[in-house]
Amino acid sequence: MASDEGQESTSNATSGGGEAKHKEEETSWSLSYKKYGNFEQWYLEVVVSSELIEYFDIGGCYILRPLTVSIWEIMKDFFDAEIKKMKVKQCYFPFLLSEAALEWKENPNKGFAAKVAWVTRSGETDLENHIALRPTSETVMYPSFPKWIRSHRDLPLKLNQWCNVVRWEFNNPTPLIRYLFTLNLSAHLSYVLHSWINLFYFHLCDNIYQVREILELYRRIYEEYLAIPVVKGKASKLEKFPGGLYTTTVEAFIPNTGRGIQGATSHCLGQNFAKMFEINFENEMREKAMVWQNSWKQHFRTIGVMVMVHGDDKGLVLPPKVASIQVIVVPVPYEDADMQVIFDVCSATVETLSNAGVRAEKDIEEDSPSWKYSQWEMKGVPLRIEIGPKDMANNQVRVVRRDNSSETLIPMSSIVENVKLILDNIQQSLFDVAKQKRDACIKVSKTWEEFTTALNDKKMILSPWCDEEEVEIDVKALTEGESGAAKTLCTPFEEDQPEMPEGTLCFASGKPAKKWTYWGRSY
Amino acid sequence: MASDEGQESTSNATSGGGEAKHKEEETSWSLSYKKYGNFEQWYLEVVVSSELIEYFDIGGCYILRPLTVSIWEIMKDFFDAEIKKMKVKQCYFPFLLSEAALEWKENPNKGFAAKVAWVTRSGETDLENHIALRPTSETVMYPSFPKWIRSHRDLPLKLNQWCNVVRWEFNNPTPLIRYLFTLNLSAHLSYVLHSWINLFYFHLCDNIYQVREILELYRRIYEEYLAIPVVKGKASKLEKFPGGLYTTTVEAFIPNTGRGIQGATSHCLGQNFAKMFEINFENEMREKAMVWQNSWKQHFRTIGVMVMVHGDDKGLVLPPKVASIQVIVVPVPYEDADMQVIFDVCSATVETLSNAGVRAEKDIEEDSPSWKYSQWEMKGVPLRIEIGPKDMANNQVRVVRRDNSSETLIPMSSIVENVKLILDNIQQSLFDVAKQKRDACIKVSKTWEEFTTALNDKKMILSPWCDEEEVEIDVKALTEGESGAAKTLCTPFEEDQPEMPEGTLCFASGKPAKKWTYWGRSY
Repeated sequence: MASDEGQESTSNATSGGGEAKHKEEETSWSLSYKKYGNFEQWYLEVVVSSELIEYFDIGGCYILRPLTVSIWEIMKDFFDAEIKKMKVKQCYFPFLLSEAALEWKENPNKGFAAKVAWVTRSGETDLENHIALRPTSETVMYPSFPKWIRSHRDLPLKLNQWCNVVRWEFNNPTPLIRYLFTLNLSAHLSYVLHSWINLFYFHLCDNIYQVREILELYRRIYEEYLAIPVVKGKASKLEKFPGGLYTTTVEAFIPNTGRGIQGATSHCLGQNFAKMFEINFENEMREKAMVWQNSWKQHFRTIGVMVMVHGDDKGLVLPPKVASIQVIVVPVPYEDADMQVIFDVCSATVETLSNAGVRAEKDIEEDSPSWKYSQWEMKGVPLRIEIGPKDMANNQVRVVRRDNSSETLIPMSSIVENVKLILDNIQQSLFDVAKQKRDACIKVSKTWEEFTTALNDKKMILSPWCDEEEVEIDVKALTEGESGAAKTLCTPFEEDQPEMPEGTLCFASGKPAKKWTYWGRSY
Repeated sequence: MASDEGQESTSNATSGGGEAKHKEEETSWSLSYKKYGNFEQWYLEVVVSSELIEYFDIGGCYILRPLTVSIWEIMKDFFDAEIKKMKVKQCYFPFLLSEAALEWKENPNKGFAAKVAWVTRSGETDLENHIALRPTSETVMYPSFPKWIRSHRDLPLKLNQWCNVVRWEFNNPTPLIRYLFTLNLSAHLSYVLHSWINLFYFHLCDNIYQVREILELYRRIYEEYLAIPVVKGKASKLEKFPGGLYTTTVEAFIPNTGRGIQGATSHCLGQNFAKMFEINFENEMREKAMVWQNSWKQHFRTIGVMVMVHGDDKGLVLPPKVASIQVIVVPVPYEDADMQVIFDVCSATVETLSNAGVRAEKDIEEDSPSWKYSQWEMKGVPLRIEIGPKDMANNQVRVVRRDNSSETLIPMSSIVENVKLILDNIQQSLFDVAKQKRDACIKVSKTWEEFTTALNDKKMILSPWCDEEEVEIDVKALTEGESGAAKTLCTPFEEDQPEMPEGTLCFASGKPAKKWTYWGRSY
């Protein structure tokens, strides 16, 4: 989305901004760009200023600061607990691969060949056999499976691995969305920090249920944790994972840029990899059979999408469920007030809330309250509690919501119930607002003219489609422009398909339509 | 410890063994080597047969199977919870480094220069700027610190990172102990999966307390979780982390090979890195000051040490605190017995134990009980519960301990209390036995003759030492042999130092002794 130059200058500006932070404290926690002014620059500024990421020595590589990792860990803990119930086990495979391993016949990694990073020397010594950094997890994991699977009793084999994969790509970098290697090649590093490889067998057809079960976990991460509405559906043949049978996806949408974004994917690999890696077993009838496989992936971009959807001109806005600090308690000094007494009440408030399971912290640094407010707003803390001498006299505190800036006075005696209620409310409200904005961008387009108008209006387009690959290729070619081409985002599952009246025609080809499909530009 | 050829053949043997497993079920879960026969081969066999690791396409790289990861995660969860109390935050830095970043003046990584792995091409295209895989975390992290630390109020900065580091080394590989790259270079990959970088400042001297606090966590991981006795102490100047001021360590000992092994390290870096990376700040008096830093590291070898210390001729022996399955419940069939009824009792037993917080599972596969017993013994499950028709009639179950094979009948009615008691007892007993064996290997040696005799007897030697680097270099040179040279393991801290009578002389130099220090061969 942003040009390299844009990113460079932001990086420098931010670095300069850090210095200013301590010099002109009152003004430093503010953004120079507006979300509805220059969205791309606003995004680049907010991810650095809120301390989610930091630029790194190597262009396109980013440092994930504690705020990012804390959000990721909350999502990971949820996911790990859910897959543990499904008897999935954690493993860790090397991140290096031999040349031979990348040369499997019919290897879908051939598509990645140009993007593979090679280690060719150690110190000053050239290695005779070059080593690749894994471009996918499948190629690293599957060669071992024939050793472990011999009989039907060794199945299902359910493994999960949290790891990086590395692919050099020509693409624009966006922190947390697309990790780029800027060097001379402008190559791309994509870190898939989660990649679950699950192997199972099934006799008659693929286990649709299991693919969908994981997709549902991803939907919950987006909707219940990150308060981001997504559409569940199937990717087109053109957009699916090349090695697999089919891909299901949760698709988010960024109203500001009018682009869809693939949130996470759950693939049915069918027997494609089993054939390639010869993963056979003896079934109950003592016959030779071949396994079916699934795999699924979530990416750090999840957090980038959250920034884009909820962030505002004051900085980050965190949904309470993923906020490592849900409530920040700030003392408000007043002339002649005994600050120690106020500090003590702040500490007691934090303790009361913490004991009730609310993630609360206090900020009793020497900075001015307004500086503190800006800081915690920039970092997206959902709720601020202000405590001053007057509040104490009235046995109350002032609470200020990050999402809509509304202020309320609540009695000290019922602080826990009230705070919990407000946090729940913020979580729901963020989702509702985001859904309203997303829904306002959905445009049903039944003709080519409606389609192109909607595309120019940055819409997420729902159109009747004949489901033919050539037609999608044509649409791409016809809509190619400066901001990229339109493509299918996903086709909602059967149960979510709107009614298709008899005789409905494909918006693009004029042939009989088979499915309602979401189209648009995308990240 | 093992030659490449030895390792290769074990790998092949095991792979063949896997096939046999399903053909000759009764005999497959057994080891061909004995712990007190051929320790090295026994170790290589047990780590594969117990399904801790699997060999990989690239020699010296190992797949960490779910059993290994489950043990690691229990230790990691303990450590993470403890450092969270200390306000340490998690972060994630890129695992790639530019050439420039590795060329810092006075960079202690210069020592690693020959061991650094370089990415030089992507696909078929040579990169103009080569990229290194991080050989340490310090060089990756510290260049960012000056951006984040400006005032004393930005300190302490406490960051933890769980990550890999990569070093190509000429060394013998041992799974989980030393990861080797066999290629043509026989290079070495060392994965430090935990590396905590903690930064703090201090005015008068280094914060010894904090370095020791982390070391104490490592001691607890070894002694309380893995039931392995360790000695805490300071590394000699020769053995310390080259970039740091001093290194503290927990040292374990393997009686079978007579070798010490560095269990985990906690370094005080002093201001060495601060000087190099110019990490300065403005102190309370508005003067420019320089930070002090600590860093500490734990390694997957922790698990290898556990295998070596507790394992036996039946396979792995897991201390209950790190066992993902603490109790395996096995139904014992009997002619005419209604197996479904026995299965139901097994399920109920697992449920009762699970509800009480015991990690229990049942094995109701079709295999024979003896095959099951061997399997779970190989995998180190601490306690087996057998349930047959006779037991059910008597309202009792038979429990068999993995560590000492002792069998007891316990009444169904008090199964939870009894199992918990036995598990505690196993945990303690494993530690006591290991300590007894380790202590039996400690030999106080005051003269050179005593020292060399003890070294030949594979002892862990406690000797009075003058604490001079040249003397340690001499001792190394004089004891160099096929199985390596003697070196210092560690010098116990002040409070653990045995009394040093006036006039005690150094065992090696004859100069006045300053400290009691542990010496020996090591991994």
